[in-house]
Amino acid sequence: MAKVGILMGSKSDFEVVKPAVNVLKKFGVETEVRVISAHRTPDEAHEFAANAKKNGIEVVICAAGKAAHLGGVIAAFTTLPVIGLPVKTDMMGGLDSLLSIVQMPAGIPVATVGVNGGENAGLLAVQMLSIKYEELAEKLAEYKQAMRDKINADDQALQTMLGE
Amino acid sequence: MAKVGILMGSKSDFEVVKPAVNVLKKFGVETEVRVISAHRTPDEAHEFAANAKKNGIEVVICAAGKAAHLGGVIAAFTTLPVIGLPVKTDMMGGLDSLLSIVQMPAGIPVATVGVNGGENAGLLAVQMLSIKYEELAEKLAEYKQAMRDKINADDQALQTMLGE
Amino acid sequence: MAKVGILMGSKSDFEVVKPAVNVLKKFGVETEVRVISAHRTPDEAHEFAANAKKNGIEVVICAAGKAAHLGGVIAAFTTLPVIGLPVKTDMMGGLDSLLSIVQMPAGIPVATVGVNGGENAGLLAVQMLSIKYEELAEKLAEYKQAMRDKINADDQALQTMLGE
Amino acid sequence: MAKVGILMGSKSDFEVVKPAVNVLKKFGVETEVRVISAHRTPDEAHEFAANAKKNGIEVVICAAGKAAHLGGVIAAFTTLPVIGLPVKTDMMGGLDSLLSIVQMPAGIPVATVGVNGGENAGLLAVQMLSIKYEELAEKLAEYKQAMRDKINADDQALQTMLGE
Amino acid sequence: MAKVGILMGSKSDFEVVKPAVNVLKKFGVETEVRVISAHRTPDEAHEFAANAKKNGIEVVICAAGKAAHLGGVIAAFTTLPVIGLPVKTDMMGGLDSLLSIVQMPAGIPVATVGVNGGENAGLLAVQMLSIKYEELAEKLAEYKQAMRDKINADDQALQTMLGE
Amino acid sequence: MAKVGILMGSKSDFEVVKPAVNVLKKFGVETEVRVISAHRTPDEAHEFAANAKKNGIEVVICAAGKAAHLGGVIAAFTTLPVIGLPVKTDMMGGLDSLLSIVQMPAGIPVATVGVNGGENAGLLAVQMLSIKYEELAEKLAEYKQAMRDKINADDQALQTMLGE
Amino acid sequence: MAKVGILMGSKSDFEVVKPAVNVLKKFGVETEVRVISAHRTPDEAHEFAANAKKNGIEVVICAAGKAAHLGGVIAAFTTLPVIGLPVKTDMMGGLDSLLSIVQMPAGIPVATVGVNGGENAGLLAVQMLSIKYEELAEKLAEYKQAMRDKINADDQALQTMLGE
Amino acid sequence: MAKVGILMGSKSDFEVVKPAVNVLKKFGVETEVRVISAHRTPDEAHEFAANAKKNGIEVVICAAGKAAHLGGVIAAFTTLPVIGLPVKTDMMGGLDSLLSIVQMPAGIPVATVGVNGGENAGLLAVQMLSIKYEELAEKLAEYKQAMRDKINADDQALQTMLGE
Repeated sequence: MAKVGILMGSKSDFEVVKPAVNVLKKFGVETEVRVISAHRTPDEAHEFAANAKKNGIEVVICAAGKAAHLGGVIAAFTTLPVIGLPVKTDMMGGLDSLLSIVQMPAGIPVATVGVNGGENAGLLAVQMLSIKYEELAEKLAEYKQAMRDKINADDQALQTMLGE
Repeated sequence: MAKVGILMGSKSDFEVVKPAVNVLKKFGVETEVRVISAHRTPDEAHEFAANAKKNGIEVVICAAGKAAHLGGVIAAFTTLPVIGLPVKTDMMGGLDSLLSIVQMPAGIPVATVGVNGGENAGLLAVQMLSIKYEELAEKLAEYKQAMRDKINADDQALQTMLGE
Repeated sequence: MAKVGILMGSKSDFEVVKPAVNVLKKFGVETEVRVISAHRTPDEAHEFAANAKKNGIEVVICAAGKAAHLGGVIAAFTTLPVIGLPVKTDMMGGLDSLLSIVQMPAGIPVATVGVNGGENAGLLAVQMLSIKYEELAEKLAEYKQAMRDKINADDQALQTMLGE
Repeated sequence: MAKVGILMGSKSDFEVVKPAVNVLKKFGVETEVRVISAHRTPDEAHEFAANAKKNGIEVVICAAGKAAHLGGVIAAFTTLPVIGLPVKTDMMGGLDSLLSIVQMPAGIPVATVGVNGGENAGLLAVQMLSIKYEELAEKLAEYKQAMRDKINADDQALQTMLGE
Repeated sequence: MAKVGILMGSKSDFEVVKPAVNVLKKFGVETEVRVISAHRTPDEAHEFAANAKKNGIEVVICAAGKAAHLGGVIAAFTTLPVIGLPVKTDMMGGLDSLLSIVQMPAGIPVATVGVNGGENAGLLAVQMLSIKYEELAEKLAEYKQAMRDKINADDQALQTMLGE
Repeated sequence: MAKVGILMGSKSDFEVVKPAVNVLKKFGVETEVRVISAHRTPDEAHEFAANAKKNGIEVVICAAGKAAHLGGVIAAFTTLPVIGLPVKTDMMGGLDSLLSIVQMPAGIPVATVGVNGGENAGLLAVQMLSIKYEELAEKLAEYKQAMRDKINADDQALQTMLGE
Repeated sequence: MAKVGILMGSKSDFEVVKPAVNVLKKFGVETEVRVISAHRTPDEAHEFAANAKKNGIEVVICAAGKAAHLGGVIAAFTTLPVIGLPVKTDMMGGLDSLLSIVQMPAGIPVATVGVNGGENAGLLAVQMLSIKYEELAEKLAEYKQAMRDKINADDQALQTMLGE
Repeated sequence: MAKVGILMGSKSDFEVVKPAVNVLKKFGVETEVRVISAHRTPDEAHEFAANAKKNGIEVVICAAGKAAHLGGVIAAFTTLPVIGLPVKTDMMGGLDSLLSIVQMPAGIPVATVGVNGGENAGLLAVQMLSIKYEELAEKLAEYKQAMRDKINADDQALQTMLGE
């Protein structure tokens, strides 16, 4: 069974992380959700990253805000793909979080999703895992179809509303 | 053998894409490199995306600048992971490209790397593939070690220079 | 009778779209209002755009937020003028929406109005239609006059208030 | 024959305006190209705008940079659609020009294209005119096809180059 | 007696303008406060500006938001000093208002104060008038002293509070 | 005879200041041009500001870049109007200079012109002085007319060029 | 006993300053907390800075918002290290405060912490003092350990919550 | 003798670091200059930081660009004050570097100087050391005086130049 590590730099980031956890659960992917700070628990971060692969983790999601170093610090110690999830802040709506995650120097990529994009972080992890787990690719196709059906239903509802 | 699709919205983006091609070649990953525009050849984009999986492609890299829709348009038609590579522009150094790639709405993630981050786009593709192809994980560990050796050699050279 | 297509990427954008619908109704222009997503219902987007002209639509308004690709995606499949209406977001007040709509590459323009500028999107559509429909030009002149009267009345009211 | 007014705030903006002039010429649209400044020749701006319609002009393109008021000032005096073309500046690559054109208050829209987007300003004018002039719609379809062919040729050339 | 014209582009800007009115009243400067829009009442704007000097106005304050052209439009028709007061918006806290006021092209300056800086707009007008009216310079010195006393009193109060 | 103090924070700002000096000379206004730094020569700044009025100076122009405090520091010690001239930097084209000059707290305004707007700083000083010196108002009207003539001549030249 | 001066430009900044005061108290560092404005009480600022060292102060913290000159003005008159604490504003979440503090010209550094980073301003002062006062270094190590324990406890609590 | 560690994330940052090295040399402060990357040599970074204090280092300067994590990573492992020196990039002139250094979460401050502010990083280190080493405070006072003399000489030279 596929497994994804989900780290947040502070307990207060849990609301942003939750949609990622929910999406992964929906796809039947196991999660290990942790509060680990690049700056306040650097040894734990190091240890988590260095052992992630041997602990069966195949993708790591890192949520952090402001000077958001967690993704980069984890990526420094593992070859697993790391997904960066920028947390919204007061500084231009999270531009600080976004830039300090996405603008990684050559050699150490962090796969960045949009600010507060918890659902997308989860879905991106599933897409990565679907390279190996064919059943996830099928579930992704169903998920895509469900989104399409939802939009079409919204469109229908709007027609009804405007037709009244 | 693993295969990555690399799309650019315009021929002029090739210089930004090149480091991605080179990295993938270095890791022995096959590439299909294409000029496909979300806006000027939307049918080709649709066709490429819809058939990518059955054509053996496992990851897609999309490079585009300004209102950079290519990654999102491709992601709309496939369940494969899509990596967005923002191209530098005159608008705040590529903030337009970055935001129009990374800020995807819920449901359709694009794994974004830094502006002009061609090497990182390639490495991220390799990391994703390494979930399935164990030999790529080993090569990534070697790549990491080589980067480390390079920095240490630079440090050595600096000591020599400053010691003179 | 003139007809304008109004698309929104998500049902939640309706509040932003509403002033456009109202303005068009006021000018006696028919509207077709739809929820169509560039990423979640790309086939519907394609189909709408490809058939818009033959369905009697003469201008299309596309409202979307964040990485707002809807305008560009529609413009790729039609020669009709496309008006882009950026929806306000938390990212710098909608700069992400604005840049991903307005910064279109050469060849595929999207006529962009201000963030949350629903009324202006509707008025711009009327102005475009007035090239062909002379009666709309006359109504626009009346609308202009009414705005002028409103400002002058506000000025009057202020004089009264300050004179007390 | 259709006619488009093209105004620039300063002679130095002509390089940005030129692609618009060329596109319009290509589509057989007549142009009246003028140097008129919202601030230095406000009376000329007023007069141009107030008489544009009766002089046979059906769309106005206004190019300006920095605190770019030309589009708004022209739009204040006419019911014709006004296209705003922001000129690149040193301030964040033209964000000042862009914001001072696109963020028009309710009632007076300016149809804004990307920074230095001369070609798109011209094409947008043609799209607007094509509502009335059916032959322009046909030419736009050919233009679209030519762009598509160009991208496909570029793609072909890339395959050849990479295949060597 | 000195007189200052205070214009706002919309009635809703009055809250931002009020501190300017209050400051000027405090200094015994007469004010003419008007709702005049650069775009919705351009003729009134022209007329106001062209006659301001002969009507005894010596400084004009113009408050406007978003694509804030009022200051520039007034400055185009008068040689009086024009003070631009940018109104806060959702776009990055009013950066659109600020840039479209301050970045005036060479030849037509607008003396810009900070976003929502109504009190400073009023004080700046007084400072300009004090070049001619010596008694205003004296009152400004008293105002400065009162501000100093206020800060020192605040400092005193803080010492008391912290000393408890 | 009217007199304007022109301060720059560093000798290297002289190129930006020069157009202000030239404009003032053109209008027959005396200038005192000084290199005075808010941070490196704070006593000189204090002394200059405190004595400016009694030395016959009626307006002060302060040019500075980056964390540009000179205008604010001078304004703290005088009741004369202070014009802030932001110098272009690498940080977003001078946004740092602009914001640190224009965003003054209530009580101490700095009349800010655009980035590198030397000519406008000079003209604004002349406009302020023209409140007192009627002959300057007349010269300003002539200057405005000359700008208008220049634009009209440019327009003429463009017609000739395009007519060839 | 070590002593830190803490200045704020306005009484309203006290909420931002408070965490700095609390941290310093926690470390047993004496504080002198003052309301002193660079612009409204420049003489007090000068006097405070010029005498800080002889009054036993070893580090100065300066909190200010908008065009935040206080840190620079204090740094101009002392050789003590000055910590700049930018206060959040409506302008892009305090980017104005940040840039006008951090972008100091060569020769006069201000050690800047994040926007509203009161706790970090206090801790940075303690770190500086710990160069001289060894016991503070020991307390800092304990503080670091306590933060680590807190994060680990949060992680534990999360496991419990998710395990339920 | 005082000692400062100076780290750069990449050899290419040396030009930015050099003025810091030169300033420290001028003040007779020993330096240990190293190329250490937070991401490519994380173990070396950890080791350096953990042992810095016992190796006699009293302040650490960290220069890095883009997603600049070096300062934060070093600060995580030491109680010494860490100075962050943001390196200029193409992204808005280094706003990415600046925000990812300065916006540190509570508990782990990084004392940030301006973009490419090498000289100020060095001076700030000297100011911190001067808390303990009185002779450095004296040298700082001389440095300040020399800067003042330099500005005054520049002012003199300007008077001569303008007087010609």
